This record gives sequence, C-alpha cells and structure tokens, in this order.
Amino acid sequence: MSKQVKYLLEESEMPTAWYNVQADFATPLPPVIHPGTGKPIGPDDMASLFPMDIIMQEAAVGPYAGRFIDIPEEVYDIYRLWRPTPLIRARRLEKALDTPAHIYFKHEGASPVGSHKPNTAVPQAYYNKRAGTKRLATETGAGQWGSSVAFAAGYFGLEAKVYMVNISYQQKPYRRMMMEAYGANIVASPSQDTAAGRRFLAEDPNHTGSLGIAISEAIEDTVTTPHTKYAIGSVFNHVLLHQTIIGEEALRQMEKAGEYPDVVIGCVGGGSNFGGVALPFVRDKLKEGKTTRIIAVEPTAAPSLTKGIYTYDFGDTAQTTPLVKMYTLGSAFIPAPIHAGGLRYHAMAPILCKLYDEGVIEAVAVQQNPVFAAAVQFARTEAIIPAPESAHAIHIAIDEALKAKASGEKKVILFNLSGHGHFDMTGYQMYFAGQLEDYEYPVEEVHKAIAGLPKVMA
Amino acid sequence: MSKQVKYLLEESEMPTAWYNVQADFATPLPPVIHPGTGKPIGPDDMASLFPMDIIMQEAAVGPYAGRFIDIPEEVYDIYRLWRPTPLIRARRLEKALDTPAHIYFKHEGASPVGSHKPNTAVPQAYYNKRAGTKRLATETGAGQWGSSVAFAAGYFGLEAKVYMVNISYQQKPYRRMMMEAYGANIVASPSQDTAAGRRFLAEDPNHTGSLGIAISEAIEDTVTTPHTKYAIGSVFNHVLLHQTIIGEEALRQMEKAGEYPDVVIGCVGGGSNFGGVALPFVRDKLKEGKTTRIIAVEPTAAPSLTKGIYTYDFGDTAQTTPLVKMYTLGSAFIPAPIHAGGLRYHAMAPILCKLYDEGVIEAVAVQQNPVFAAAVQFARTEAIIPAPESAHAIHIAIDEALKAKASGEKKVILFNLSGHGHFDMTGYQMYFAGQLEDYEYPVEEVHKAIAGLPKVMA
Repeated sequence: MSKQVKYLLEESEMPTAWYNVQADFATPLPPVIHPGTGKPIGPDDMASLFPMDIIMQEAAVGPYAGRFIDIPEEVYDIYRLWRPTPLIRARRLEKALDTPAHIYFKHEGASPVGSHKPNTAVPQAYYNKRAGTKRLATETGAGQWGSSVAFAAGYFGLEAKVYMVNISYQQKPYRRMMMEAYGANIVASPSQDTAAGRRFLAEDPNHTGSLGIAISEAIEDTVTTPHTKYAIGSVFNHVLLHQTIIGEEALRQMEKAGEYPDVVIGCVGGGSNFGGVALPFVRDKLKEGKTTRIIAVEPTAAPSLTKGIYTYDFGDTAQTTPLVKMYTLGSAFIPAPIHAGGLRYHAMAPILCKLYDEGVIEAVAVQQNPVFAAAVQFARTEAIIPAPESAHAIHIAIDEALKAKASGEKKVILFNLSGHGHFDMTGYQMYFAGQLEDYEYPVEEVHKAIAGLPKVMA
Repeated sequence: MSKQVKYLLEESEMPTAWYNVQADFATPLPPVIHPGTGKPIGPDDMASLFPMDIIMQEAAVGPYAGRFIDIPEEVYDIYRLWRPTPLIRARRLEKALDTPAHIYFKHEGASPVGSHKPNTAVPQAYYNKRAGTKRLATETGAGQWGSSVAFAAGYFGLEAKVYMVNISYQQKPYRRMMMEAYGANIVASPSQDTAAGRRFLAEDPNHTGSLGIAISEAIEDTVTTPHTKYAIGSVFNHVLLHQTIIGEEALRQMEKAGEYPDVVIGCVGGGSNFGGVALPFVRDKLKEGKTTRIIAVEPTAAPSLTKGIYTYDFGDTAQTTPLVKMYTLGSAFIPAPIHAGGLRYHAMAPILCKLYDEGVIEAVAVQQNPVFAAAVQFARTEAIIPAPESAHAIHIAIDEALKAKASGEKKVILFNLSGHGHFDMTGYQMYFAGQLEDYEYPVEEVHKAIAGLPKVMA
C-alpha cells in the first residue's frame, strides 16, 4: 500500500560479533592510573570488581584483542528474545517537518525492559556466572540499568543488589517494582547499607543522591561482600563493546533500506547507547574513508563533552575508583535537582573522549524544554513516547532535518531511540505543567572542581 | 546458532483486510433491542453515538457485509508504525516446563501504547474524522483503551475526553500522564462532568468507579456535546472486526513456523483481544473443519462466560444503552475492590457469547494469585513482564503445556500476549507482598441481578 517504514532483520541475519573499536585505534587509550601509586593499573587491580573475561575485554587483550568479538551462544540466546530490534524510517515525522531529509531510528525501546541496557547486562551476567560469581552489585539512575541487571542476573541465577539514586527511587516506583519482579534487591542511595552511603546521609538525611554516590556504594558493597562482582551500565570499554550490536544491526538494516547515513546521532550520559550505535560507523569513517558526521547529544545540565576538561578524574563521587582520562565536570559533580531526565554522569566513556578529542565525533549540549518539545512532536507523529534521554537525540535529528530543509539537501539521518518513556511520564507532566526550567551548568564550577583533582603524569 | 524464536512478517506481508465473522454465521446475531419500544434498534438509533461506517460494520451490512473488509490506507499507514507484531515461540518457557508442547505467543505489547487496543482506536478515529466528528468521548479501566484513543484521536486531529475508572486513575498515574502526552483530556469517573457521574458521587464521594459507570458518563457526554461521538474499546462487533488483524497475522506467522495451533488462548474482559486472535481460527474451524480448541480465560472475580446468564442486559451500569443478548453478571455488577487487574466488565462481546453458546469456543475462570505466578514465571523465562490481564492467558497456556507433558502429546499452543505490564507494576507489588486475595464472584448475586432486568421477547 504505502512506502516501507520498517527494516527488520531475521534472527539468521543478526550479527554474531561485537565490534572492538580499540583494535582500530592508531594510538592506545590513555592508561588507567592507580591513585595511590600514580602508575597504570593492571588486571589484578580490577579483579575484585570484574571477572577476568570482562577485564580482558576492557583492555582489549588476549582473546579480546581482535576487531570482532564473537557473541557467546548463551548471550545470543537471550538477545534474540527481542533482537534484532527494528530500524524504522520516521516518514510521518519527515512529513510533519516537510524536510527532504530521510530520518531513520533504531528502536532499542523494543527490549523487554524498554531500553538498550540489557545489551551489556546480559553478557556481564554471563561472564560472571561462568567465573563463579554468585551476586552482582550495581547502581542505577533512572532505573533502566538496574532493571536490566535485575533481568540479566535472574536469567543466570545470580542475586542482584541495586543502589538506586534516591530521587529516582522516589519518582520512579514502577521501575523499582519492575526490578523486584525480576527478583532483585533494591535500596535508595545514599543508603544505610554502606559506609559511603552513611556518610552522605549524615550530611543530609534527605540527600537526593547522584549516580556518582550510588557507584561508590555499589563498589564498596562489591569489595566487602563475598562472591560479589560489580556490574556497570556505561562508561567502560567493555560496555561500549557489548552495545555495538546496535550499530552492527543498523549497518545491515541501512543497507536493506538502500541508504547510508550522512549523520549518526545519539544521546550521551556515560556514552553507552551512543557508543553502541556510533562505533560501527566510526569504523567505516576510520577505515573506509566515510565522512559521516557522528554527533553526541548531552544535556546542558551535565555537559561533560562540551564544557568538561579532558583530564584524569575519578569515576565516582567518593573518589574511590582508579583515575581515568575523560572529559569531566569533576567527580564531585551533582546534577541540579532542576534536571528531570537521566544523562547525569560527571564524565564520559574514555573511548568517546578520545574520539571527540581527535575530532572523529562531535558533541552538542541541549536544554530540557526543547528536548521535551521534540519528544512530544515525535510521539505525536511516530507514536512512540520516547525516554527523555532518547529525546535529546530526537531534538538534534529534527534540527538536522530542518537544516536539510533550509539548504534543500537530501540528508540521511540515523539516530538511536535508546528507550521508551513509559516509566518517565512524570517528566512529561512537569513539561506540560511548565515546571521544567532550562539550565546550564556553570563552566566556572568545572574549573574549580578540576583544580582540586590529583595531578597525573601519563 | 540456535533454533528460531521469532516469526516476523515484512510490511509487504501484512494482511490488508479484517475478517468479518458475521458473514460466516449460520444464523444472525440476536437483535439489539430498544428498551423503550422492545423492538430491534435500527441504524438511526445509533447515529448519535457512532459514524455510519462504524454502524454498518457493527451490523455487517452495506459495504461491510462480506467476509473480508479492506483496511483503509490511512489506517494501514498508522498500523505499520508497529505492525505486524512478532509471533514468538516461548522456547525458554517450554524448557522451564519441560513440556513437549510448542508454545507460541503473539506480542501485542509491542504497540506504542503497550497493548492491542490501538488496533481498533485507529480505525474508529479514522471513520469519525471522515464523517466530520470533531471530538471523541470514551471510558477507560486500566488505561490501555484510554491511551489508545488519546493516541489515535491525536493522529486524526480529534479532541478526546476520557472518563477513567477512579481506582485506576488513582493507582495508574503514568497511564493518565501518557494520555495527556498524546493530548487528551482525562477525568476520574464517576466525575462531576455528567449527571450520571454526579449521581454516583452523591451516593459515595469516594466511589472507586466501574467500567459500567464510566461508559454511562462517556455516552451521556457524547449525546449532550455537539460534534462528539463515542469510542468503545471492546464488546462491540466492529471492535472485534478491527482486532482480527491479530489473528490474521498469526495465521500467516504460524504458517511460517510450519505449524498450526491445537489450542488458541486469550484473556477476556469484554472480549476484544481474544476475539482478535481467535476469530480467524474460528473461521478455519467453521469452514475448514479444523478442530482447534479456542479458550477464553476470565477472572473468577468477573466470570461472565462461566457464571453469567445468556440473556438481554444493558451495556452500562446506569442502564442507558440498548439491550443486548450477552452472557452477563447483571449490569449492576461492580467488581470487588480485591480484584487487582482489568477484565472487569459485567458481560461479554455478543459475537463471543454466540460462539460460546454454540460450543465453538470454551471458557475457563482463574484466580488472581496463580495468574500472577504465571506472569512471573513468564517474565523470568521470556523476559517480557506481561500485563496482569494477559497473564490470565499465560496461566492457561502453561496449564495446557503441563497437560501435554503429562500425556506426552506434542501440542501446539498459541496465546495472545495482549499487553506488557509496565504500567501495572503495583499489581505485581501487591502479589509479592501477599496482599492479593483469591476471590470468586458469588453465583447467587448473578441470579438476583438478572431477575431485576426487563424481559425481552426476541
């Protein structure tokens, strides 16, 4: 009847390998530094947190040094419960914008927890199970990551403990209940269950929490509880590796659509969904001479790429992790309570920081009201109510489509719809009620925070 | 790698027609009776509620008398934003049950509002738009129908007013916000906005509401507001017609899987998702001599098929509608507050009542605790958290698979997963907390209620 909108892959066409971008880097990632010794850390320094397969994937060494890493059959077997996810051409949005651009999106909201996060939760649970881990500890902000760990841990018979940022714990009870339905144990962070949590609660018994604090608690839990390892939802190299299934599928689906994107867009908090969709296109850019623009979209309330400094910083607020070279707002960063959505981390995935530093990818920061305006326009044309995080990508996809309209160019735009918004309706309600204020994190705060960090010679 | 679990259809394979089961009935449906005259109603009696296309579809007359009704291109164009939905083989559930049965489910939770309801909301909005309607009024229980009307009305530029059963309005704020995101106007029912609502509020200012009351309000709103028509989410013939897209797709997908179901299962409240999946298989049973068992699953708290009487009753609690021959608990029925899920209507779709009366379909009633137990087993094997309504079907699918195990038969089971449970997490929480009581609606109440109804000679 009408022109095609969905580009599906059969299970038999699903990629069977993740893409390891580190194999294509001309120079290696800056080393991760032990804050005590000032020296690069080795595998043993991470062994209390992760199983050895994850540690080797993180460093891209041993069996994980190649460009393509086979997806284990046990992981594939769970992936295919919802993967391959559809690639959808947003023809109704194109029409509403009256643009010559073709807008495609990858629908990661089609997963059982409603976001891209299980793509890495499942392999993390798998490698832990294989290594004899009995229990996973993790943190969660909006709850998408915690749900994914709850789901994946359950599938491999592991216990799960989730430290959920207090403000989300209060505002998103359904996410909490979902984690409980999958069998996990949830607590609001800061919590009484760790020394770090008790310290922040002593400062403020009604502390709204932050992702950095929740990370500190999950790590403390991990290193103080037997048979427990840590699961992380973003930032780390192995997380981005697992997420490349998104972009690998998208490459094949764009081929089915007979087009190649001029622009690839994703939202960034820690960088996992963006890395997932973008890295296979980065490969084409590095290796095949493609000129694709690859754009990371972040909130002005947590603008680590556009306003952060590329320097060594801790991964958590309590400053207990090794030092990592990242674009950072300073590890003491706590997002203004005014900021409704996720994308709240103080820094960014080291792989993306390197690519940004080298000019391979771009970044842009956007305000929350136009983000929700884009979300509503998308919902009212393409039917899916997007997660506020994903709507950052939609906002820039629309901007690019309008630029194409102004210039008369037939641009091909691809963005990642990292999740649906069914658990984030309070953000929409605040938007409609005019209660969301636009806000830019002040750059002076960044310089102040960075000045206080330990100096690293690397 | 592994054996296939998903059976997809390309857009080009999507059915282009709905199935009108009335064309295959040996005898017509019992007439709908005007309560004042005692005579069958005609098209004019319904013209204040529905546009003429819907009225003709209801009666299966004029251009809508044939077996197959072409889906209008404008409707198809919105359907394909999420349709065809996947047919999934529940291999992990099969394995957990250690059954030789093959269990397939149709995943209607893949729609943008998370259920099958937009399948009829979209054509209803379309036919209304074409007829010059400016505004739709409707009721909603759990909120799935209201979200669908909000979504569909918005797509055709119609206003929407939704009367939401008060207890759901209180317990499901996210559904309410979702309707608002799509641009609809929502009010708790009983409300101050209608005479019927004010009457029930006068009796009890904290009235928890019922679907029957909300229907009364929506109908009153429709007939007293200019350019307004009524949209209904279940029970009516035209609703079941539109929902047959589910079963038509499932037929083609089962063919791709190389199997034909021995058992087809759906949950029933008013009967729309069950009718949708079942009627195309009813056709094969009536016309091709298939011996498929077709099972409607209802809650023991609202057991209209298994405990109701097949007689003439009103469609709403305020007894303002025409009289329809249905299996009914009596139109004064209000579900016990103890009943957590949807599936709360006092009667059943006339098409299904006729098929049940004639022995073409079966029915079974189930308690809510085993329903949630089935839901959790499904979530922990197949990843999707089902709507509590859909879990009624899962419960019986599991029972049938266990019977197949006991008898050693390789049964092929198909059930409809009518929606996901992301908006219904409070039910899960109550289940885990042991707060859900099993409950059977007392049959004496049915006889008492039926005795008070007007007698119809038809």
